[in-house]
Amino acid sequence: MANNTKGKCAIAIDAMGGDFAPHNAVVGAIEAFNEAKDFDLFLVGKKSEIKDVIKKNNLNFNSDFIVNADQVIDMHDHPTETMRTKPNSSMAVGTKLVKDGKAHAFVSAGNTGAMVVNSIFGMGRIKGVSRPTLTAPLPNANDQFTFLADVGAFVDSKPQHIFEFALLSSILLKEIYGIKKPRVGLMNVGEEDSKGYKLTIETSKLLRDSDLNFIGNVEGNDIFKGTADLIVCDGFIGNILLKFAESIPNFLKAAIKNYSNKSTTNKLRVAPMVFPPTKRAFKDSLSKANPDNVGGLPLLGVNGISIVGHGSSSVLAIKNMVLAAREMHNKNLIEKIKEELTNYAEKK
Amino acid sequence: MANNTKGKCAIAIDAMGGDFAPHNAVVGAIEAFNEAKDFDLFLVGKKSEIKDVIKKNNLNFNSDFIVNADQVIDMHDHPTETMRTKPNSSMAVGTKLVKDGKAHAFVSAGNTGAMVVNSIFGMGRIKGVSRPTLTAPLPNANDQFTFLADVGAFVDSKPQHIFEFALLSSILLKEIYGIKKPRVGLMNVGEEDSKGYKLTIETSKLLRDSDLNFIGNVEGNDIFKGTADLIVCDGFIGNILLKFAESIPNFLKAAIKNYSNKSTTNKLRVAPMVFPPTKRAFKDSLSKANPDNVGGLPLLGVNGISIVGHGSSSVLAIKNMVLAAREMHNKNLIEKIKEELTNYAEKK
Repeated sequence: MANNTKGKCAIAIDAMGGDFAPHNAVVGAIEAFNEAKDFDLFLVGKKSEIKDVIKKNNLNFNSDFIVNADQVIDMHDHPTETMRTKPNSSMAVGTKLVKDGKAHAFVSAGNTGAMVVNSIFGMGRIKGVSRPTLTAPLPNANDQFTFLADVGAFVDSKPQHIFEFALLSSILLKEIYGIKKPRVGLMNVGEEDSKGYKLTIETSKLLRDSDLNFIGNVEGNDIFKGTADLIVCDGFIGNILLKFAESIPNFLKAAIKNYSNKSTTNKLRVAPMVFPPTKRAFKDSLSKANPDNVGGLPLLGVNGISIVGHGSSSVLAIKNMVLAAREMHNKNLIEKIKEELTNYAEKK
Repeated sequence: MANNTKGKCAIAIDAMGGDFAPHNAVVGAIEAFNEAKDFDLFLVGKKSEIKDVIKKNNLNFNSDFIVNADQVIDMHDHPTETMRTKPNSSMAVGTKLVKDGKAHAFVSAGNTGAMVVNSIFGMGRIKGVSRPTLTAPLPNANDQFTFLADVGAFVDSKPQHIFEFALLSSILLKEIYGIKKPRVGLMNVGEEDSKGYKLTIETSKLLRDSDLNFIGNVEGNDIFKGTADLIVCDGFIGNILLKFAESIPNFLKAAIKNYSNKSTTNKLRVAPMVFPPTKRAFKDSLSKANPDNVGGLPLLGVNGISIVGHGSSSVLAIKNMVLAAREMHNKNLIEKIKEELTNYAEKK
């Protein structure tokens, strides 16, 4: 395995990460590879299991690009403890590939906390970053995304941390989503700068004094309204909001079913909604929120591309995570972050 | 005006509270009064304006029950400052009616923060309560409510405060909603007791050591799932979650419209959804979440019934707020809270 960072894009995938690993991880990653063809793909995990999936699915893959890792981190492993208890996990081996310059990106649908810890310790943080952040796109009423950061990399943030979430995520929005001056809102319980508590008041000051396009405090209803391109908050709140948002489609299904079960009249009223093209229309209307399309969330601030997927990631979600990693590499995201943080440190 | 607390139920309404005051407040309260007929109603606010509304709407109301208050708190007033700057506001006068034993309940759709402050200072706190809480019902997939507390009475809570939110709200669920052993969950970012940060870990201990039916940590997706009857959290998070939840219907409308506008095929697919009975079915499926039905939120822990409504409260919402106050009085909610808190203090 040659040092790859100067040449062709190289992406490593955690073949053991996710509820449907190794199947979905291996099949999804190879689909991305076959579609784009312009990057090297490393499959990281138990070699024999990976080979089995390749064989059973009649896939073509050069086994020189399978990187063995004996240990597997599961959803119940305590994130920080995995560093000590599972030094040969697919996450540890995968993030080391990035550290050693053999890959540019590592992608995993495994234990989110462990992925955060392994990425930080494996890849290191970019200079100037005290806390990396997971940034999530949520759909909004303007048919755009409202990004939310942090959605759970860290809890109990200090003002400087939340400020960094805004800085890092703004670079993502500029470089990857083409939003020139991302409007940044601070999640709060009222619009006035004096609202909230010490954390939000001090964070608000840091954001106001910066070059970021800070539009002030926003509230819970601003996510879907699309008042801001990016809303920053502590990871405790962001994570709760993200999981709440993800639960909306199933709740709506249940609410309509409950209503329908109450009477024949209700059943008739609901009937047009379950007409297949209408059902599809409803699903497509929410396609921006579909985890398959979102793929995974970037962990910003570590020294390499790290993408964390949902445990239940489908083959399509994995494929999209790998393609997202490729795009971030092709658009030089990590270099852009380094440049902007250097500029920021110099100005300060 | 005689001292009323020993006799007939008496409810005071803030005639000046809400975006559509005094109209909606006056009309809604009189509708509740005309429907139930078994309580005394006080309309509190600018007497001439209240009389105008009564006259214009051809209502019948004994003007002895109009209590004049010269000042009006608006949505931009700083909550705590209103105590000093507006001592004769309708909120100050209304909560004083409760303090003086002339009314059992005060209901307002005005500035929430000011209503919290005026209720606490006007009515006082029940012994054993360090922080009152606003409790909100959200619909869930089981066709029941998941209650969320605190939704914004206070931010920056200590473990003891969140424990009190659980205690007070559990009494509400038992006495008013007939849930014998309300399942209490603590909002967190993972299920294990060790998850979250100092605040949640310590709160979790207090809840585990109590007689409450504590089911452990819950996550953002558990609100709609209905895993718990009651979920407790700091008011900062609860308020953001409530406002986020309230924004879902408008977002769905916008998402479907955006989809529909993209092509004629999409328009045709969406058509059955806008068929009036289907539209109604969709609306009715979410009726549990309809602010008109929810009415207002009780502020629990103050020494009297205090109900806070949405600024945009309709006539129906106001009517339901008044009827909810009446039910709380008829079911002796305040006495039950006092008893349970005394029991709790004795056991400790």
